[in-house]
This record gives sequence, C-alpha cells and structure tokens, in this order.
Amino acid sequence: MADTRQRIVEAGAELIRHQGYAATGVKQIVAAAQAPFGSLYHFFPGGKEELAAEAIRLSGALYLELLPAVFDPEPDLTTAVRASFSGAAAHLRQTDYADACPIATVALEISSSSESLRLACADVFDSWISAFTPRLVARGLDEAEARALAIGIIAALEGAFVLCRAQRTTEALAVAEELVVLSVERALNR
Amino acid sequence: MADTRQRIVEAGAELIRHQGYAATGVKQIVAAAQAPFGSLYHFFPGGKEELAAEAIRLSGALYLELLPAVFDPEPDLTTAVRASFSGAAAHLRQTDYADACPIATVALEISSSSESLRLACADVFDSWISAFTPRLVARGLDEAEARALAIGIIAALEGAFVLCRAQRTTEALAVAEELVVLSVERALNR
Repeated sequence: MADTRQRIVEAGAELIRHQGYAATGVKQIVAAAQAPFGSLYHFFPGGKEELAAEAIRLSGALYLELLPAVFDPEPDLTTAVRASFSGAAAHLRQTDYADACPIATVALEISSSSESLRLACADVFDSWISAFTPRLVARGLDEAEARALAIGIIAALEGAFVLCRAQRTTEALAVAEELVVLSVERALNR
Repeated sequence: MADTRQRIVEAGAELIRHQGYAATGVKQIVAAAQAPFGSLYHFFPGGKEELAAEAIRLSGALYLELLPAVFDPEPDLTTAVRASFSGAAAHLRQTDYADACPIATVALEISSSSESLRLACADVFDSWISAFTPRLVARGLDEAEARALAIGIIAALEGAFVLCRAQRTTEALAVAEELVVLSVERALNR
C-alpha cells in the first residue's frame, strides 16, 4: 500500500516536472505508476491537486540534494557559484534542454489558480533559499547579504532556464553566471 | 472575416498569457472571441498549436511596446534599469501577482514538446534582446556588453517573476534589480 502511494507521488513528480501540471492527467500518472486508477483517489481524496502538492515538494527536495555535491566541495565562493551555473548548463545540454528547474513550469501555471499548489512551490523556493543562505554565511557574507545572494542565485538560474530552453543555447546561463559572480565579488570585498 | 481572425488571436493570446498553453482549450478561445467554433480551424488549419504560435508573437510584440515608455524617458542607464524593475514590481502587485511575463509559462510548457511554439518563444526573446541592445549602446555600452546586459535584464526579470508569483512578494524583483544595477555600474565605469 505504502509502496503504491510512493510510486504515484514519484510518477506524478516526474510527469509534472517534464510536462507541467495542466498537461498531466491522472490516468497518465496511475499508468506510469503501474497503479490501479482508484488508488489515486484512495490515497489522495483531493485528486490531482492534492497529489501535485506532494509531488512538487518531493521534486523540490530531490533537487536540493544536489546542492551539497555541487556547491560545497569548491574551494571558494566564486568557484562554487560558477560550478552551480556551469553544472546547470552542462545538464541542460545533456538533456537536450529538457531538464531545468523541476517546479518552475508548475509554479507559473498555478500561482494564480491554485492556492495549495502555489504554497507548495513557495515552500520549495523557501527551502532552497534556506539551504543556500547559511552556506553563503559560512563563506563570509553577513546574513542579509547571504539571503539576498541566495535569492539572486535562484532567480538568475530560473530566468536563464526560461531563455535557454526556448533558445536552445546556454548563452543566458553564462550571462547570469557573470551577473551573480559580480555580486559575489562585491559582497566579499566589502 | 479579418476581424474574426484577429479576435481569435487576441483571445488566445490573453488566455494563454493567464492560464498557460495546456490549460487553454480551443472551445474557450472561440467563446472568448465570440466566434463560431469552426472559424478557428478555418483560419488556423493547424488548430490550437498554429493559433498559439501567432498568439505568442502578438503577446511578445505588445509587451515590447511598453519598453519605450518605461525605459527611454529616464535620464541615465541605472535609473532606466531601476524603472524597468520597479515598474514590473508595481504591476505585479496591482494585478495580485497574476500579470508578469506574457510568454514565460508557455515557453516552459512547450519548449520540449512543440518545435513551432518553442521557435515562436525564441523569436519573442530575440526581439526583446534586439530592442534592449541598441538602447544600451546608446547609453554608452559597447555592443557585446550591451547584448549581455540585455540578456541579463530579461533573465533577471523572468527568474524574479517565478519566485515573486509563487511567494507573493516582490522581494526577488528587488534583489534582481540590485544584481543588474551592479552590472550596469561596472560596465559604465569600465
């Protein structure tokens, strides 16, 4: 039982990541999860919306797990920031520009139509900001600078992803990296 | 006849701007356009996808019309950039965080599934970059710096919109404004 529930959440998370929320149907989710149709409503009486809220939080948590591996090993903050952007650019090229932010599509789709899904997306962004901020403090920034830079890193990545996916180049990620690095250097030299 | 076609494109553009592509149905578009159902396929034999490509280009062109009014009157480049971000933040608050970029949602939804719609989005981003770049050259940047800054402005706005709409605050736009202004000042002082 618990396995079926988990498979449904994982299948929903993957489909929503790649197709967005509106394009993903409940039939497709249960098929991908190899679960009986009724099981979705058994585990999620609120249907697709309730499942999607949990899928969004799962995708956000999985993405966050990349941060220690990409960011922490680098010797200084500038290099760590550069590694985050160049890693994202390499991944984008490797996945033929499909795999960028796991929740940005759904965030834009539902922010004005589903309060429960908007809150799930807001919680994920908050969790990312909260994961970056102490890492930036540990590299010498004060708390307010660190929070602003954390938001700046995430916003710059998100915006660059929109352009890169449409344009099928990583030019915008390279530009965004320089924007953020300039801000890092200014904060470190203050 | 021409009026009906135009009404369909305008209705499609508005619905896609606010709901995204997948959530917008052809029946809803013709109803909003007060057009007979068959007229959509009469004018757009390729159906919703063909109509959406034209709607995306229309939305992109309408958004571009804001640039001369917001950007050009400002006395210097830093002030013009600040006006673009603070104008976007004010508009976001006024529309209850609904009205941000007219094409970002559809760009993320379709970039990996519809080549014709991806190209329409890429054309819109190119048109925005091409509109910003000479304005930045006119304010003293060289061509390469101007193109990079144009991409940086658009990417920073797009990314901040994703966070602002999910979080229902304009904090990310304020952060993105400072990121971009730092880059402007560095380019002007070089």
